[in-house]
Amino acid sequence: MVEPLIDGLVEALRRLPGVGVKSAQRMAYHLLQHDREGARRLSAALLDAVQRTGHCQRCHTFTQGDVCGTCLDGRRDARLLCVVEGPADQAALERSGSYKGLYFVLMGRVSPLDGVGVADIGAEQLLNRASDGVVEEVILATGFTAEGDVTAHALGTALKAQGLKVTRLARGVPAGSELEYVDLSTIAHAMGERR
Amino acid sequence: MVEPLIDGLVEALRRLPGVGVKSAQRMAYHLLQHDREGARRLSAALLDAVQRTGHCQRCHTFTQGDVCGTCLDGRRDARLLCVVEGPADQAALERSGSYKGLYFVLMGRVSPLDGVGVADIGAEQLLNRASDGVVEEVILATGFTAEGDVTAHALGTALKAQGLKVTRLARGVPAGSELEYVDLSTIAHAMGERR
Repeated sequence: MVEPLIDGLVEALRRLPGVGVKSAQRMAYHLLQHDREGARRLSAALLDAVQRTGHCQRCHTFTQGDVCGTCLDGRRDARLLCVVEGPADQAALERSGSYKGLYFVLMGRVSPLDGVGVADIGAEQLLNRASDGVVEEVILATGFTAEGDVTAHALGTALKAQGLKVTRLARGVPAGSELEYVDLSTIAHAMGERR
Repeated sequence: MVEPLIDGLVEALRRLPGVGVKSAQRMAYHLLQHDREGARRLSAALLDAVQRTGHCQRCHTFTQGDVCGTCLDGRRDARLLCVVEGPADQAALERSGSYKGLYFVLMGRVSPLDGVGVADIGAEQLLNRASDGVVEEVILATGFTAEGDVTAHALGTALKAQGLKVTRLARGVPAGSELEYVDLSTIAHAMGERR
């Protein structure tokens, strides 16, 4: 087919993460054939989010205002600051219901191979934020990947130098998993950190 | 997180076929964090496609004008009319390069369980289109699924009653599969061996 509008829509959909040509075509045809209202709504939601969502001045997560709802929430424990790689990680922690402190959302993680250093992910803003005199403990909740570990190590060193207590999420066997299917380095960590 | 704009975007993305909550969140955060230009482009492409794409008056596929480029193409063999379930199937046939006739694009397929009868998918328009005095052979290229077979059978009976030659893509297309996901050489073989 040589239909520029549909081809353009397929191309635009392909920029979504995890969407290839076939999925994009399927999405485009589905929207045109069965859900034009959904397409209109998505179009508006995209523009709305892009135009009106900025970063929280305190924790750097996405928000509509200057400061996000979490940072403004007086019921949260301001002595705890949890550092995550991105808003999706923050959302996962929130869903777990296990944390009632505040957050600092990095702009990704240190990745030497991609030329992303500790300065690029907002380390300086984190150090400023953490030294407000209220924060007592910084919990490093970057991913348990090589890059997440490097990020946690670099930030941890800098934070400790300011006299802050620095912790890391516990490494171990995930809930609900059979030991025989857990990868070996996880088991080794869980064994080493048993309590 | 209680960020209405982001929640709204996630909800809107979830209406795309094959996209669940987690994928939608990942897409939303990716666009906001790394590809706001892509989000703007997608927003515009969606609106453009929805507002300016209609159905071809002759073959019913999606097109910008009144009649699509394929129907207007004088080099195509107007004696052959290939009936497909949707534009994605038509696109797959075009990519296979095995067919140079014209198309008729149904609005889906007969599905008794969903209350979709032969009238709902445009059978009457097909019969009108096929009896233009030029069409000599109608190739039924609905999917090789139970519903596709029922559709082909119902349409074939009606078309034959009008004295038209009716063929079906050769078996060779793996049973139980949707045409748009079949590999191109299989489609080409099936086209060559139609009977």
